[in-house]
Amino acid sequence: MSRLRVNAFTLSIDGFGAGPDQDLKEPLGVGGEALHNWMFGTRTFRNMSGDDRGTTDTDDRFVARSFENVGAWIMGRNMFGPIRGEWPDESWKGWWGDNPPYHVPVFVLTHHPRDPIVMEGGTTFHFVTDGIHSALEKAKAAANGKDIRLGGGVATVRQYLREKLIDDMHLAISPMLLGSGENLFAGIDMLKLGYRCSEQVATPNATHFIIERA
Amino acid sequence: MSRLRVNAFTLSIDGFGAGPDQDLKEPLGVGGEALHNWMFGTRTFRNMSGDDRGTTDTDDRFVARSFENVGAWIMGRNMFGPIRGEWPDESWKGWWGDNPPYHVPVFVLTHHPRDPIVMEGGTTFHFVTDGIHSALEKAKAAANGKDIRLGGGVATVRQYLREKLIDDMHLAISPMLLGSGENLFAGIDMLKLGYRCSEQVATPNATHFIIERA
Repeated sequence: MSRLRVNAFTLSIDGFGAGPDQDLKEPLGVGGEALHNWMFGTRTFRNMSGDDRGTTDTDDRFVARSFENVGAWIMGRNMFGPIRGEWPDESWKGWWGDNPPYHVPVFVLTHHPRDPIVMEGGTTFHFVTDGIHSALEKAKAAANGKDIRLGGGVATVRQYLREKLIDDMHLAISPMLLGSGENLFAGIDMLKLGYRCSEQVATPNATHFIIERA
Repeated sequence: MSRLRVNAFTLSIDGFGAGPDQDLKEPLGVGGEALHNWMFGTRTFRNMSGDDRGTTDTDDRFVARSFENVGAWIMGRNMFGPIRGEWPDESWKGWWGDNPPYHVPVFVLTHHPRDPIVMEGGTTFHFVTDGIHSALEKAKAAANGKDIRLGGGVATVRQYLREKLIDDMHLAISPMLLGSGENLFAGIDMLKLGYRCSEQVATPNATHFIIERA
């Protein structure tokens, strides 16, 4: 069965998955990039930019697992780029260069239609304008039995949580405060939605939690 | 210098320091007691009820430290008991029996005056009706140079945070979701208030964070 998964989604101690004021220079909002420090030193992460070094510890295991058995991605438009409103032209193709780290179809939620973009390495960005259920159906069809990984941003994960569509999440909490930004859980009753924490594994860099629907 | 400290204050992954619907049977709200599972097995905690056994690991070290150099406590009325409104009589003397685990003066915030209660073992409950600043002044005078420990509940900690009166906090995050209850950080910008996380230590039972004012 194809599952909808969230992986390596990182929160601050005070519950923010991204800082405020996302823009071209701060794709994760002010202070948001540092949330992911636990990830940047891992071999799996560094391999993505051609670097052979990096740690192979628990943090790396969670990064590696996040890419395993993924047949399609879904992400919100805020994760795809900083542009809001109508697409001014076809030039923005994501943050990730010509060969993005997805290598599978990626379904981008947006209110503004746009033709698919075929990138190098197997990534194609598809723009879905008819809602999160439709994006999930399309992603399932494309994933060919593998899982669908839900990226971000926070607002997108919140939408799928509220509809009980997420099967499991790997969350990390980084040892920092963000003060403001996008809060993952505010106003969402995770217990009522049927979620439980089934595992905790901590490293010096972050604490990892597995959250599943009962 | 006498500091105002929060220790062993535990949150769920989704940010709640207590569950909903506190009452006589559920002093920490529904689900709230399980937040503190990391603490119940420690030697320091078990010693409080005369049991010599218990773990002496990192979790225990945090519990032990929480009682060191404490000259007075401040707590909200919700931590003192389940009664709301006027005191119906003098019979309620806290959750902790004749010999509470404080052994120093305890200042209870309330809107309803009441005479002090002298308990066994050095604990005296004083009822403060003129606000959090007054309680802090009284506690400082009573602490005789030692620190003041701020207990709970969540609402009380939030009041002192907003006034930047807390010098440092030891928070623990337990590997569970509460779904609803009292959220510690909602609407509070910890960075703007000057707080930073200076330490993370994890155990299989909880992740401990030290948060200090810069």
